[in-house]
Amino acid sequence: MSEFRQDPVTDRWVIIAPERAGRPTDFPAEDRHFRRGFCPFCEGHEDRTPPEVDCIRPANSPGNTPGWTVRVVPNRFPALNREAAGPNGSRGLFQTMNGMGIHEVIIETPRHVMSMSDMDVTSVSDLMRMVCRRLRVIREDTRMAHATVFKNVGMAAGASLEHAHSQLIATPVIPQTVAAELDGVRRFRARNGECVFCRILADELDHKERVVWKGRYFAAFAPFASRFPFETWILPLEHAARFEEQSSEYLGELAEVLYTVISRIDSSLSGPAYNVVIHTAPFRERDDRLYHWHVELMPRVTGVAGFEWGTGFHINPVAPERAAAVLARDPVVPLSI
Amino acid sequence: MSEFRQDPVTDRWVIIAPERAGRPTDFPAEDRHFRRGFCPFCEGHEDRTPPEVDCIRPANSPGNTPGWTVRVVPNRFPALNREAAGPNGSRGLFQTMNGMGIHEVIIETPRHVMSMSDMDVTSVSDLMRMVCRRLRVIREDTRMAHATVFKNVGMAAGASLEHAHSQLIATPVIPQTVAAELDGVRRFRARNGECVFCRILADELDHKERVVWKGRYFAAFAPFASRFPFETWILPLEHAARFEEQSSEYLGELAEVLYTVISRIDSSLSGPAYNVVIHTAPFRERDDRLYHWHVELMPRVTGVAGFEWGTGFHINPVAPERAAAVLARDPVVPLSI
Repeated sequence: MSEFRQDPVTDRWVIIAPERAGRPTDFPAEDRHFRRGFCPFCEGHEDRTPPEVDCIRPANSPGNTPGWTVRVVPNRFPALNREAAGPNGSRGLFQTMNGMGIHEVIIETPRHVMSMSDMDVTSVSDLMRMVCRRLRVIREDTRMAHATVFKNVGMAAGASLEHAHSQLIATPVIPQTVAAELDGVRRFRARNGECVFCRILADELDHKERVVWKGRYFAAFAPFASRFPFETWILPLEHAARFEEQSSEYLGELAEVLYTVISRIDSSLSGPAYNVVIHTAPFRERDDRLYHWHVELMPRVTGVAGFEWGTGFHINPVAPERAAAVLARDPVVPLSI
Repeated sequence: MSEFRQDPVTDRWVIIAPERAGRPTDFPAEDRHFRRGFCPFCEGHEDRTPPEVDCIRPANSPGNTPGWTVRVVPNRFPALNREAAGPNGSRGLFQTMNGMGIHEVIIETPRHVMSMSDMDVTSVSDLMRMVCRRLRVIREDTRMAHATVFKNVGMAAGASLEHAHSQLIATPVIPQTVAAELDGVRRFRARNGECVFCRILADELDHKERVVWKGRYFAAFAPFASRFPFETWILPLEHAARFEEQSSEYLGELAEVLYTVISRIDSSLSGPAYNVVIHTAPFRERDDRLYHWHVELMPRVTGVAGFEWGTGFHINPVAPERAAAVLARDPVVPLSI
């Protein structure tokens, strides 16, 4: 069973999850390329995953059979487990919590494709609606404080399987990254009387040099202090704390911007590894309306090395202004960095 | 010229360093293996690096010629630059600082080897003494607040060249990781009247289950809240704030424990990518004697994925107790995880 453990110096939490060591991988250590073998996520292989917990499929089609478009299953090698029990508390100097949580896999398409740019806007839109539905279900479990939805594409981004999928991990504590953002939001509001994300949006749209895309409900831009080359944030133009409270019309446009930006990243950088993370407010924080949900898209073309681990400073060799200039062009020109 | 930029939400700093994009790499994107080509760090190629700033070589041997054992050169593609100038301050919403700092490369051996386990204890000992010497020189530049010494081995650990080398980056600000550790040290001392690292050491040596190595001056153990499989910390047994104030005898034993632990990691995990980072006190902080310098060794056998970036929680599939049991054995048994 997995366990949360806290470092007594910095108070940072880690999840020790021995079950994860058994998971299969498309990436054999020897050659670092995908292994084209059996894929448990492909249509027709529904019996090779745990039974689905949610699905978009025709009304008359039985569960766990072909015919679906988006399929949600529990992770077979979960980092956290709904049934985890056991003591929370201190072990001498050290704080621990049992590994209680939820870990689901959202299979984005029945076809064996890798990047979101191999899908289409309708499929991405179905995916966004499913993420929304899962978050609404999971927040009903009052033991959960927050859920993180993320996507790893390519080995350098931490993916173990190639077939396009997202993951959802709900935790009984607010993750430290989200807590730090909430603190920042509170600090900025106390000083300036407004939401820091709303202010960044207004500034970026005003100056334009880092803007990648703008629609009716969303804008995408390369953040001023980008950690990664071609890092792109997607924010709703109107202040909103929670992804799962957005309407279907909003999610349709979100699918369009996601598909567009990822397609441009794939064509300018020859299909790099990347991570996508949805940052959304905790389920039940007192002042959680202050948060401004958003998506962070992080291409992984440079490594994270000793300096980053030792200092917390990322070194980014591509100025966000240059990244935005490339990504705002349509069609994009392939780039060598 | 490079630039520090601060994220207005979380206050984290990044370094935007466009010059870094031009650096050569042994890792072509297509096949992710080392390219065996010309190596500027090998003996005989001294004219292919910037002129050396320090060196261990026979007394009668001229600079920038063969015959050396450890050689220090400025980084040709520096993240930060001693001559950087320009405004520090705010650009509207955004804080910046010019990219002033020092970035040196310490070539660890004249031979084209990759891991520290391909060297010997004497060479590692020479390297430690050189690191010590560079830190003592660099701290004299009163514009510098701190220096981080680190080592990247293998592409997955962010190395761009194969030949064994360390890097030193001095910064005009205290890195956020070191600041967080110093805060933790202060908090723990205020509550418990002792150094948290001294207390961890005493606990680990008492319980033994995570201890990897113990000598006269140093101990190595797998930390309770390890972020990475086989993460190992090496601490001086006696409280000391600064690496660069250790005696030559201490550094000799440090070389022995580093060589031993890395050799065991290389043989148990078939030569994985890894990072080594020396965490040492800021040069001039008021209460910097409170810090306890140490080395963090991080094998990079698992990826850092969307969940880690979104939450700050690392998922580690190998319990530190298991890692220590493997690494404490000598000779080690190759392990498959």
